[in-house]
Amino acid sequence: MTPEVQVLLNTLWVVTAAILVFFMQAGFALVESGMVRAKNAINVIMKNYCDMCVGALGFWAVGYGVMFGLSSSGWYGTTKFAVNTGEPFEYTLLFFQMMFAATAATIVSGALAERIRFNAYLVGSFLITTLIYPIYGSWAWNDNGWLKQLGFIDFAGSTVVHTVGACCALAGLAALGPRTGRYAKDGTPRPIPGHNLPFVALGGFVLWLGWFGFNAGSTTSADISIGKIALNTHLAGCAAVVSTLILCGVLGKPVLLTTIVNGSLGGLVAVTAGCAFITPGSAILIGLIATPVMMLGEAFLDAFKIDDAVGAIPVHGFCGVWGTLAVGIFKESGTDLRQMCIQLLGSATAFIFVFPTAYIMYRAIGSWMQLRVGSVDEQRGLDYAEHAEVGYPEFQDGLLHGGTASTTTAPAARPATTPRPAITAPVGRN
Amino acid sequence: MTPEVQVLLNTLWVVTAAILVFFMQAGFALVESGMVRAKNAINVIMKNYCDMCVGALGFWAVGYGVMFGLSSSGWYGTTKFAVNTGEPFEYTLLFFQMMFAATAATIVSGALAERIRFNAYLVGSFLITTLIYPIYGSWAWNDNGWLKQLGFIDFAGSTVVHTVGACCALAGLAALGPRTGRYAKDGTPRPIPGHNLPFVALGGFVLWLGWFGFNAGSTTSADISIGKIALNTHLAGCAAVVSTLILCGVLGKPVLLTTIVNGSLGGLVAVTAGCAFITPGSAILIGLIATPVMMLGEAFLDAFKIDDAVGAIPVHGFCGVWGTLAVGIFKESGTDLRQMCIQLLGSATAFIFVFPTAYIMYRAIGSWMQLRVGSVDEQRGLDYAEHAEVGYPEFQDGLLHGGTASTTTAPAARPATTPRPAITAPVGRN
Amino acid sequence: MTPEVQVLLNTLWVVTAAILVFFMQAGFALVESGMVRAKNAINVIMKNYCDMCVGALGFWAVGYGVMFGLSSSGWYGTTKFAVNTGEPFEYTLLFFQMMFAATAATIVSGALAERIRFNAYLVGSFLITTLIYPIYGSWAWNDNGWLKQLGFIDFAGSTVVHTVGACCALAGLAALGPRTGRYAKDGTPRPIPGHNLPFVALGGFVLWLGWFGFNAGSTTSADISIGKIALNTHLAGCAAVVSTLILCGVLGKPVLLTTIVNGSLGGLVAVTAGCAFITPGSAILIGLIATPVMMLGEAFLDAFKIDDAVGAIPVHGFCGVWGTLAVGIFKESGTDLRQMCIQLLGSATAFIFVFPTAYIMYRAIGSWMQLRVGSVDEQRGLDYAEHAEVGYPEFQDGLLHGGTASTTTAPAARPATTPRPAITAPVGRN
Repeated sequence: MTPEVQVLLNTLWVVTAAILVFFMQAGFALVESGMVRAKNAINVIMKNYCDMCVGALGFWAVGYGVMFGLSSSGWYGTTKFAVNTGEPFEYTLLFFQMMFAATAATIVSGALAERIRFNAYLVGSFLITTLIYPIYGSWAWNDNGWLKQLGFIDFAGSTVVHTVGACCALAGLAALGPRTGRYAKDGTPRPIPGHNLPFVALGGFVLWLGWFGFNAGSTTSADISIGKIALNTHLAGCAAVVSTLILCGVLGKPVLLTTIVNGSLGGLVAVTAGCAFITPGSAILIGLIATPVMMLGEAFLDAFKIDDAVGAIPVHGFCGVWGTLAVGIFKESGTDLRQMCIQLLGSATAFIFVFPTAYIMYRAIGSWMQLRVGSVDEQRGLDYAEHAEVGYPEFQDGLLHGGTASTTTAPAARPATTPRPAITAPVGRN
Repeated sequence: MTPEVQVLLNTLWVVTAAILVFFMQAGFALVESGMVRAKNAINVIMKNYCDMCVGALGFWAVGYGVMFGLSSSGWYGTTKFAVNTGEPFEYTLLFFQMMFAATAATIVSGALAERIRFNAYLVGSFLITTLIYPIYGSWAWNDNGWLKQLGFIDFAGSTVVHTVGACCALAGLAALGPRTGRYAKDGTPRPIPGHNLPFVALGGFVLWLGWFGFNAGSTTSADISIGKIALNTHLAGCAAVVSTLILCGVLGKPVLLTTIVNGSLGGLVAVTAGCAFITPGSAILIGLIATPVMMLGEAFLDAFKIDDAVGAIPVHGFCGVWGTLAVGIFKESGTDLRQMCIQLLGSATAFIFVFPTAYIMYRAIGSWMQLRVGSVDEQRGLDYAEHAEVGYPEFQDGLLHGGTASTTTAPAARPATTPRPAITAPVGRN
Repeated sequence: MTPEVQVLLNTLWVVTAAILVFFMQAGFALVESGMVRAKNAINVIMKNYCDMCVGALGFWAVGYGVMFGLSSSGWYGTTKFAVNTGEPFEYTLLFFQMMFAATAATIVSGALAERIRFNAYLVGSFLITTLIYPIYGSWAWNDNGWLKQLGFIDFAGSTVVHTVGACCALAGLAALGPRTGRYAKDGTPRPIPGHNLPFVALGGFVLWLGWFGFNAGSTTSADISIGKIALNTHLAGCAAVVSTLILCGVLGKPVLLTTIVNGSLGGLVAVTAGCAFITPGSAILIGLIATPVMMLGEAFLDAFKIDDAVGAIPVHGFCGVWGTLAVGIFKESGTDLRQMCIQLLGSATAFIFVFPTAYIMYRAIGSWMQLRVGSVDEQRGLDYAEHAEVGYPEFQDGLLHGGTASTTTAPAARPATTPRPAITAPVGRN
């Protein structure tokens, strides 16, 4: 094959894969929106829509250079900022990596849903995409990164994307605290059901779709191995669902849609680190084990009263660590204890670097601008409080002053758009 | 072109197509969920989500070998079980075929919706993907399959996937009976409107999207003919919609969304068998005729009081047979009576093998574990009865005990998650 | 690279891109349905679903030949009608261009929503896809087109697709007038909120996804530049959202979901003309400026009481013109005043040709068959009046006679399907 053909094939495949990864944003938006109450449905979607946008500009200007620029120290890159000219394939890589950065950032939005202010969230998201994710990413994925030099293996980002995103989410939760009413006075968690479960399932399908681009595109070249990578990805997701079904049966619990969807995502997260280096049988094992790991994560959150609104930390954090370790256990060359130690080091480093950094960041944002909405606004819902609108105006009677649920008459003038103190205040206030 | 380049291109295309076929699962979930009542919205989605998963493991372990393993008898394959090593392209093919198997199985979920138990459905689905679909599939698509040796042509599966799926659905309906209230005492059918028609249309778009992978990917190689295949696929779907519009106009019937969407799917099913061997003009004719064929199927179901909740049998069964026959009529080398007889044999064989086999299977499942939910549970809805949750808790007042539709206060503790007899019983009972 | 490999790669890429463009139909359906009231939710989706179908047959039979057939005059093509044989790649191009034609036509459906009759809309749509769009398209994209010969640059269709679609929409609005109740007696516009904002955001994501195929596929060949085109497309969309956020902050307005989504679409429209010829930095600038241009468009519509139900004209028309001009300003060879004049000529020509032609067409349709639904039907909603069904029957109490919102009992016989005068009348009446 001539280099000319190879680079063209690489371009075709990586662009296609990046487009699939882009669509994961829609998957996150659906899963997260469906899992929150109707009064916060659009606020969380807006966070997904907008974090991708502010993050993309930040990643183009700074993040890509930090992550993939020349890293003589092994700790951060110093070239390739604001790429505006260059090799055609550089643009392709940048496009692909930009979608990865957006994925890491958007993991946070669901966990912190129903309480974090829109503006504060976006500032945090911008900093994650521009600095936190690229710095850790450069350690693991830059050719000179110190973790990579040690032999750390994270093929498509169980740690780099998912664990990093989950650590940011955990830091945000530490700074924000739980939603009002989430825990009873005696500390018992009170479930807050999502308002639209079909959205959650649709989001699960969309994320799964995007995951094929995420994992099989991480070759960053056209390669005959992509069939196997896609197959392993699929089998792990399926095995995790089967595992969830078995666990619910054994434990005598009802099979909830959210558990099934989160289970499948946990399997997909777990196979992400090793999907190119394992057999299909191992992918199934990794997926089967992902669900109990995720449930362990849920128990951990409950024990410490950490109120993750969508279960992002069990899925992306716990299963991310499991998948990273699993590379050392299941890689085709055989279980490798030394590799497992390096994998553990990589996961631990992610937590040690990201959690405190993100925590300080959220506290700093909080002292600069209000981090959490006021309790009246939380009660009313962030859609109304922060955007002066609601997701389903005809089906949410009484939430908007003067709103009408009638479907047969033209609605009265919508108060939301004539700025009133109650509505515009949150937008500008600090 | 070197073989190296060819296999790489084949891999890129077949993986891309398989990813599109995967997404058809989301399309089925949306169409089927939208066409049932809100109280069963998530049960049917869960069936789609989970049948893909249990089926994938079964197809990997057994089904792929039965269908594509060495078939010295011409009746079933005996190698390639649980593929764990091998040529890279084998994984690609397995990944693609796994998605096809999932499609065949998931056709059933919509037809049987609103009454079949979740566990019983999944057992049936597992057996379809693991045995019934692969056995018939080996006859038509295995290089040594007896139908293939006879000259049977089913390019992308009008029969292998769609008719087989529809025959399983018909068998399930024969075992289950109609939904309570579906027929008046005098036998008049009483329409049961779906709860979310925008979902139905969105599902139609998603299925149509996936169909391009389904048909154009069935080359299982990168080939310059894929443009023509995709074009024929699109034109047949479009022609079927135009035909539906004309028929509704002529008959003086309102143009219902479900009729339009099912019409388009009927056209897509019909063109699936021949899309690679016909001209665009013939594709349009095949699509135009698909709609009356589908309506014939609906009249047939009504006449025999077969309660197909989403119209899956007219779409996948009747139009599947029509499309299979149409290959003999429209293939570019001219109408071929002998071919038509072989095509008819292929369709008839699908019915003769699949319908009784699947019927026995569903009866066996029924005697092992309850096949149909109890009438109180059917009344309450399968979401609540089988999963202890509902799809839109804030908009389905009074269905959950202690549930609240308030969007402005944190809901009270959700009873669903504290196991109560009424909820957990269906999960574990036999 | 051998020509054989090149044509195969071109086929793979252009088919993949066309499939993505196809999916934009779902995006339009979601955005438009979400932005209208529940009582019109499915009518607008049906228009999207069906205009694609009637348009595809018309474009195959006539439109493709007019647009891309041999154009000796430079004003319209005269060959390639009803393509039924030929080079394999011709089918691929036809498939791709068919999706573009559908996009241009479907822009109209949103603007005219909630008042235009279904049948009349489809006739208009058929004529746009078959004649209006291809004629203008031949001037700009046919090798012999007079605008192309002058040096007009519109890489992926800011003018050819988006401005043309917007001009048709404007003509339709001139013929139809505003929705009942849209303007108060003193002329103040009264906002009519959409019924499902999560659909709007999901539609935005789907359109964005399809746009990568739209722009990067417009190479109509596999080319290493597609990474850059995709990157520029993404950055412009993201920059437009950032610009919207900044503008809302500066103006003290709440950040509405519809504004964010329309802003992003405006950025994507604007970068469409030049995405292959500009740097990423320029793409960001084009996107940043797109939002104020869109807001200018909204002010223009309000000033003239033009009731565009979804903001299609500001997004596709105003931003289309901006993007076309921007090619002259930002192309990599430097700002070129002559080019800007040619670009302006191209935009002006689109308006001068399309607006009056489409206006005459809509008036002619109106005198042949009723263009606008009666005021009682408008009040009741077009779903009920034109299709005898509603989108969410269990959640829209009292709209259907005898309808029931109960989720726990089988609904009574649905009156909609036993033809009654009130329902069937609109379908057949002239």
